[in-house]
Amino acid sequence: MKNDLIKDGERIDELGRKGYRIIQEPGLFCFGTDAVFLADFAKGGPQIKALDLCSGNGIIPILLKARDKAGHVTGIEIQEKSADLFKRSIRLNDLEDEAEVICGDIKDASLIKGVYDIVTCNPPYMSAGEGLVNPGDAKAIARHEIMCDFGDVARAASRGLKSGGRFFFVHRPRKMTDIISLLRENRLEAKRMRFVHPKEGGRANMILVEAVKDGGVQMIIEPPLTVYGKDGEYTQEVRDMYFG
Amino acid sequence: MKNDLIKDGERIDELGRKGYRIIQEPGLFCFGTDAVFLADFAKGGPQIKALDLCSGNGIIPILLKARDKAGHVTGIEIQEKSADLFKRSIRLNDLEDEAEVICGDIKDASLIKGVYDIVTCNPPYMSAGEGLVNPGDAKAIARHEIMCDFGDVARAASRGLKSGGRFFFVHRPRKMTDIISLLRENRLEAKRMRFVHPKEGGRANMILVEAVKDGGVQMIIEPPLTVYGKDGEYTQEVRDMYFG
Repeated sequence: MKNDLIKDGERIDELGRKGYRIIQEPGLFCFGTDAVFLADFAKGGPQIKALDLCSGNGIIPILLKARDKAGHVTGIEIQEKSADLFKRSIRLNDLEDEAEVICGDIKDASLIKGVYDIVTCNPPYMSAGEGLVNPGDAKAIARHEIMCDFGDVARAASRGLKSGGRFFFVHRPRKMTDIISLLRENRLEAKRMRFVHPKEGGRANMILVEAVKDGGVQMIIEPPLTVYGKDGEYTQEVRDMYFG
Repeated sequence: MKNDLIKDGERIDELGRKGYRIIQEPGLFCFGTDAVFLADFAKGGPQIKALDLCSGNGIIPILLKARDKAGHVTGIEIQEKSADLFKRSIRLNDLEDEAEVICGDIKDASLIKGVYDIVTCNPPYMSAGEGLVNPGDAKAIARHEIMCDFGDVARAASRGLKSGGRFFFVHRPRKMTDIISLLRENRLEAKRMRFVHPKEGGRANMILVEAVKDGGVQMIIEPPLTVYGKDGEYTQEVRDMYFG
């Protein structure tokens, strides 16, 4: 059962699709609904060459594989412990020929060649100074713009994409105007958005965005994604994303 | 009954609130759901000084008055026939002291002083060359960017607003990225948006936007507005906007 891949304090979580699994360590950043929504929102296919930025433990690359949205996927993660989890999840899922992880900084231009059809990213949402932060803390680095901000993410995505390639990411609504501007500064045109509303009749707390490198002006607003029903349980659409 | 205010071919439509009415001429542009949604989305009050750009027959100013969202409202409309309808609707509703219409071009800086708390606009949505257009046609001028484009609208809104004042408008999603950029170029920061979806589970076909002059970075995404229910009738929320 490949249990030699697991270290003390770690756990294996089932991903509900084709037997894919992921190794997580509760002291580091564990994936949430945003990763699942992003993997659902992204468009790809079995021939697609994908790059995932700020990969953490590799949840997005593994979900892309589980959904046949990528042929080969490369993940970049700056934190060694998270990159190590990701490497072992690749072995756990027998993905050695279809996934790889680079432990490095997305700001390092030498790491990213412009050969990818799609780029994905679930970046840190919060500003470096937002809330109480210990800058050396692994979870803080995953959540706050300590090691990179959205400008760095947009530059790296643009660098990695072929012209016409697509960048899919998730973020908070608060800085939407800055985000759209930073995309344009990096030859990325926002083309499609979906807003995530925790409750029907409530405001959005998450945005899913598709941008096209060198794309023309266009914008599609998808149907809203409602997370919880009136019964307090996941809506059918969310259940299908997790287990469908 | 003030029926002397009506000319041949015109009609008086009830607005469902406090007895307010409007004179419309089917050969010109008659108001639609977008005007009602914009009047609902806008925030104001009985002390507010409001400016409405591209007023047409004056539907937005009259709806603002019907909803107690403006103390005094000034409308600017370039087409003489529409401005004339608006003038007569002001008399029809006994609003001579609370509303006025200027027949002129929003690009004429001398017409707009920076004294307004809020500015509203239901502008032409379509590019000048989009679809078959007779540029002299009154409906075409209302619908297409023949006499003004969104850059002109944003400039006029910014000119009319006090610092901290709010600009409310309705548009199509397609050019959302351009719109947000043009707002920023004119010291207007988009702060709040609501997307209008004709059907539940369908894409948006309209966006409602609030921008603040000299405002900081922030974005609130309101709950989606669904127009038609599964029965093909207006949803309760839309019915309340019309008749509530």
